[in-house]
Amino acid sequence: MKRVAILGSTGTIGRNTLAVIASHPEAFCVSALAAGSNLPLLAEQIRFFRPDLVSLGKKEDAVALRRRLGRRGPRVVFGPEGAAEVGGGAESDIVVSAITGINGLRPTLAAIRSGRRLALANKESMVVAGALLRREARASGAEIIPVDSEHSGVFQCLAREKKRNVGKVILTASGGPFLKTPLREIAGKTVAEALNHPRWKMGRKVTIDSATMMNKGLELIEARWLFDLSPEALGILVHPQSIVHALVEMRDGSVLAQLSPTDMKIPIQYALTWPERFAPAVPPLDLAAIARLEFGRPDERRFPLLRTAGWALREGESAPVALNAANEVAVEAFLGGRIGFGGIRAVVDETAAGHRTTCIASLEDVLEADREARLLAHSILKRRC
Amino acid sequence: MKRVAILGSTGTIGRNTLAVIASHPEAFCVSALAAGSNLPLLAEQIRFFRPDLVSLGKKEDAVALRRRLGRRGPRVVFGPEGAAEVGGGAESDIVVSAITGINGLRPTLAAIRSGRRLALANKESMVVAGALLRREARASGAEIIPVDSEHSGVFQCLAREKKRNVGKVILTASGGPFLKTPLREIAGKTVAEALNHPRWKMGRKVTIDSATMMNKGLELIEARWLFDLSPEALGILVHPQSIVHALVEMRDGSVLAQLSPTDMKIPIQYALTWPERFAPAVPPLDLAAIARLEFGRPDERRFPLLRTAGWALREGESAPVALNAANEVAVEAFLGGRIGFGGIRAVVDETAAGHRTTCIASLEDVLEADREARLLAHSILKRRC
Repeated sequence: MKRVAILGSTGTIGRNTLAVIASHPEAFCVSALAAGSNLPLLAEQIRFFRPDLVSLGKKEDAVALRRRLGRRGPRVVFGPEGAAEVGGGAESDIVVSAITGINGLRPTLAAIRSGRRLALANKESMVVAGALLRREARASGAEIIPVDSEHSGVFQCLAREKKRNVGKVILTASGGPFLKTPLREIAGKTVAEALNHPRWKMGRKVTIDSATMMNKGLELIEARWLFDLSPEALGILVHPQSIVHALVEMRDGSVLAQLSPTDMKIPIQYALTWPERFAPAVPPLDLAAIARLEFGRPDERRFPLLRTAGWALREGESAPVALNAANEVAVEAFLGGRIGFGGIRAVVDETAAGHRTTCIASLEDVLEADREARLLAHSILKRRC
Repeated sequence: MKRVAILGSTGTIGRNTLAVIASHPEAFCVSALAAGSNLPLLAEQIRFFRPDLVSLGKKEDAVALRRRLGRRGPRVVFGPEGAAEVGGGAESDIVVSAITGINGLRPTLAAIRSGRRLALANKESMVVAGALLRREARASGAEIIPVDSEHSGVFQCLAREKKRNVGKVILTASGGPFLKTPLREIAGKTVAEALNHPRWKMGRKVTIDSATMMNKGLELIEARWLFDLSPEALGILVHPQSIVHALVEMRDGSVLAQLSPTDMKIPIQYALTWPERFAPAVPPLDLAAIARLEFGRPDERRFPLLRTAGWALREGESAPVALNAANEVAVEAFLGGRIGFGGIRAVVDETAAGHRTTCIASLEDVLEADREARLLAHSILKRRC
């Protein structure tokens, strides 16, 4: 029986993780949960899964939950320290890191330092602190298993292939809702249109990142650190059906690809069970019924943030921190109705242009670069609003 | 430096193997060659690759070659014993088995018994004596690495995945030249039309087998023994472009696929270099340029021999021997103009219907079942001509 802690239990990945755990009660139980502010759902999860420890974002929510649960139930903590306690606590064998954005960094780092298995869905922590997290994982012996479908695909294709035999790692991109939209209409798209992803049901932030294709840019940077690859060894292929998630071109010209239905339960379950595989969470793929798989090159005129992400990937150090910070600020402003869809690109590009790259050697360096980039992004935002 | 022996050096696989060896002279040299009767080409191969031992089908050809080479050059042997000497000789590290048909069985067995690496292109020996070859390989410690593109694909997808995690192994079939031909026109197709394969340049026998899809039937039986799978764990998917060669559906619903350009040099090189991979023999795959991959279900009305092969796969023992013998007889008769394309199916199906399954415990059992099935097939053939 493996004890699983979930950082971000009330989000899409968190809920899917709990569904996987519920379907394999003989193999998994829940040890700890960290959520933001969705108190009713967290209370329900506690009743069903009976964790020993839970954390909420704010103290008042933690107090309210404590009162609601009465005498019984788990220990309740709160804030960044609470989330870090869930991430690093000794009561778990596996930590699923699924808090969105740079807020996931501290508890992810705590999990890695504790030397357990980390099922990583919080791509931003790998984007902003990849070198640091790799170093810490080497020191603690933590296994990092990716949960993103693309990275889970790469992980499976690489299997135990020797690194010198790997040529290029290619992530597929669905292209999101605006793959065929006339170019001049894209900047004016609404929040509802941008959230209407054709293939995946995901959280709001990642769905918007998918519409701008920033998601794929962040995933390239994540892949760089997860698999220790040079920027030149990474590529993107547009594949609207999202059936093929990743391809690995070997040195000899042979290509391995990973395919699966578009359901996050598959990569989540794999991250929990690896190197084993359990019975499927969803019906199998029927390629004869699907009949065709389509591929194309990504268009940087349509998805200009790919170019900015490419800069951050090659530049390294604080550049991905700035890219991510500006994107978080811009997407939040777009979702809040303060800027249009085209404004996301403008804010990110201007922040990147104004960023002075600094070296990243510690968590503090990351947080400082993040703070500065956010200040810059907010000032750019203010000018535009 | 690995010393390579090639059984069938003047055929398509043999020539491609020599091309791979020529492009990596730092890693491979040729130790021994066995050919049929193509004396001029064999003489050329000897001049270039300088093997220590060569074998020809007939004594008179061996004598003629000996005279042609003068005092220098390799030792020359002939006949089935000569081929078996090339297969089992101590001068090689790797034996490439690429003689077509059941004639490849004896030297393949000799190679396996010698405990070296066997790069297996002669699928018929695995079809008629799979259980036997597996047993011998276990005893001698021989590694059997498949050369067929489909089986090479399966081998790569399986990597070191645990057997209990593997759900289904799917081989793709291009569908050959008659995939879209109106059904009632197929039986009347000429030799030239049947040899005009849309994707692969291969030997005549396997090209005809591809047009009837018997090739895929034989490959399913081969895969059964190569990978120790039950008949139910095997499937076929039609994929006209022949870019995806095989797919492995894992227990959890995740699918790994292997893709590469349609060039036999890729799987041949992999069988020689595994677990390493060398620089590619051909330009890499450009999926964005290919744009789409198509898949469909195989149609047993169009390819009725699939049903007969399915029977042999499930029946086991001498049934695949009879299937293969009848097919070799029928394809030879078709290539010789004695029967029409539709006659291949008739001869194979009638032979299968008249076959009484016997147990296979030894090479002699295989050869006896083969002899009987050939007699039956020839008598059926005589009646039809």
